[in-house]
Amino acid sequence: MRNEFLALGLAAMLAGCATEPAGTAVEPSSRYAFWRPAPVAGAPDPNAAVSEAPADAWRPIDPADLLVMELKEGGRVVIELAPEFAPVHVANIRALARGGWWNGAAVYRVQDNYVAQWGNNEAPVPMPAGVVKAPPAEYDRPLAGLSVRPLGFPDAYAPMVGHSGGWPVGYDPEGGRAWLAHCYGMVGVGRDLAPDTGTGGELYAVIGHAPRHLDLNIALIGRVIEGMGLLSARARGTEALGFYKEPALHVGIARIRLAADIPAAERPAFEVLRSDSDSFSRFVTGRANRGGDFFQRPAGGVDLCNALVPVRKKQ
Amino acid sequence: MRNEFLALGLAAMLAGCATEPAGTAVEPSSRYAFWRPAPVAGAPDPNAAVSEAPADAWRPIDPADLLVMELKEGGRVVIELAPEFAPVHVANIRALARGGWWNGAAVYRVQDNYVAQWGNNEAPVPMPAGVVKAPPAEYDRPLAGLSVRPLGFPDAYAPMVGHSGGWPVGYDPEGGRAWLAHCYGMVGVGRDLAPDTGTGGELYAVIGHAPRHLDLNIALIGRVIEGMGLLSARARGTEALGFYKEPALHVGIARIRLAADIPAAERPAFEVLRSDSDSFSRFVTGRANRGGDFFQRPAGGVDLCNALVPVRKKQ
Repeated sequence: MRNEFLALGLAAMLAGCATEPAGTAVEPSSRYAFWRPAPVAGAPDPNAAVSEAPADAWRPIDPADLLVMELKEGGRVVIELAPEFAPVHVANIRALARGGWWNGAAVYRVQDNYVAQWGNNEAPVPMPAGVVKAPPAEYDRPLAGLSVRPLGFPDAYAPMVGHSGGWPVGYDPEGGRAWLAHCYGMVGVGRDLAPDTGTGGELYAVIGHAPRHLDLNIALIGRVIEGMGLLSARARGTEALGFYKEPALHVGIARIRLAADIPAAERPAFEVLRSDSDSFSRFVTGRANRGGDFFQRPAGGVDLCNALVPVRKKQ
Repeated sequence: MRNEFLALGLAAMLAGCATEPAGTAVEPSSRYAFWRPAPVAGAPDPNAAVSEAPADAWRPIDPADLLVMELKEGGRVVIELAPEFAPVHVANIRALARGGWWNGAAVYRVQDNYVAQWGNNEAPVPMPAGVVKAPPAEYDRPLAGLSVRPLGFPDAYAPMVGHSGGWPVGYDPEGGRAWLAHCYGMVGVGRDLAPDTGTGGELYAVIGHAPRHLDLNIALIGRVIEGMGLLSARARGTEALGFYKEPALHVGIARIRLAADIPAAERPAFEVLRSDSDSFSRFVTGRANRGGDFFQRPAGGVDLCNALVPVRKKQ
């Protein structure tokens, strides 16, 4: 078994070295094949893995880590913050929420297959005291101190990918660094050119195929866990980068608050499936090996952004 | 050089074998790292690679391979068909268009981060003569006969990925098979359970992160090359799988025609960058190694669905 494995792996290694002339017909041979695990027969149903997860496989989200955006038209977008990855930016965001900085702000940019972005960019507003104007480049952090569950499948962008504390991460075991990945629904900090890292006032959510080339180049601060459709189903802006041409198209934000600042009776509450739980491992195996009546051929793999950690409203 | 390569590759091979206990802290070590190419310094700007492509790097799309959907509310969605991958389904789709089968149909399902789907599912209409009711499972095809440009980066779903004739494909050099990949904007054939493969009457477009687990399980027949926002920016359906609860939410389709059946003066015309051109190779290298003033750290890789072949209106 190990020998077969080695032989296939050697072919995989040589694959990346070869430079294939453009337009050459590819013959059936293994010389380009990258190594990946084999499909798993009889894998768990991923939805059942979640619905059957025991109570202790879930962790509650701290109300200080929940950002609640209410739109003027009605509807609510809830974002889980990731202070363990971008502490200065998250502290800024908490200060901006507490200072009411986004109350009256707007979604002003929606670019198809990319991002929806909001803040006060189109009509600047002074920031409350305590906001760090030039935060450090919180694009990655030490791997040490995290408990990462390796995904187990190859990735085009990072040496390794997996999940830590419920977050999709890329990491480099050699260099000892880890970073959040730009999956669907992840929220990042708009910025200008280097060395600007943005304050956290202008935020965007990914609404298309994961733009992973942004990883390590922008501070990600969390992810949308409720109300994605209120951002993703917007008319696309017609200006460059999806900015709305007419201010009338802006989507008004009534207010953004931390859940911790909302009276307990009205406060939304959520739980995340622990990414170090057996239930999450069953979920990943199931996502990588879809079965049931519909699927004829399981892939034997799943990419990081198709294995996002399940979240549910707290009962 | 080759020796370093082998050493890293051996680590990569062993990676997939190891079973990491859930919750174990990962130490900085290379034992899990999958092999991937190094970043390229001074890579081309991908947009410039396209804008500077010579005229002979572009191929016109045959009007018989262009499906033009007009919405009752106004607006047009144009789909390039892929007869080389799903000939029976594409023949069905041409017959349905020529028979006017979709005129009066609707978009009846929009599921966030997944698909928008249209047809006559909610109000069945008899099909014109000549439509094959039970097409074969055109989920893959022989690799022989295609000219595939290997992407050059690892993939979680397929042994190899690349581009052939402008299409994003997965392929298996050992088994000699190739298949279209479920990238953003790709269009597939809705079906019921096996062995049903769908006629081609009910179609969907991918509007979120690539659901690659559907590869090899559904017939893909093309991709949207104009008007994606008319599908992706729709209110999400609130029923299971994103079906609209109220028929009033259905998005009416005025008609769907082949460009070949539209008078020449009104006929839309598009060109695709040849995926076997040097310009496309420069585009891929640039997408994998973003530079310029904004990007601080190029990824050194790109995934298949972030390297879709550029299309432009024909001058």
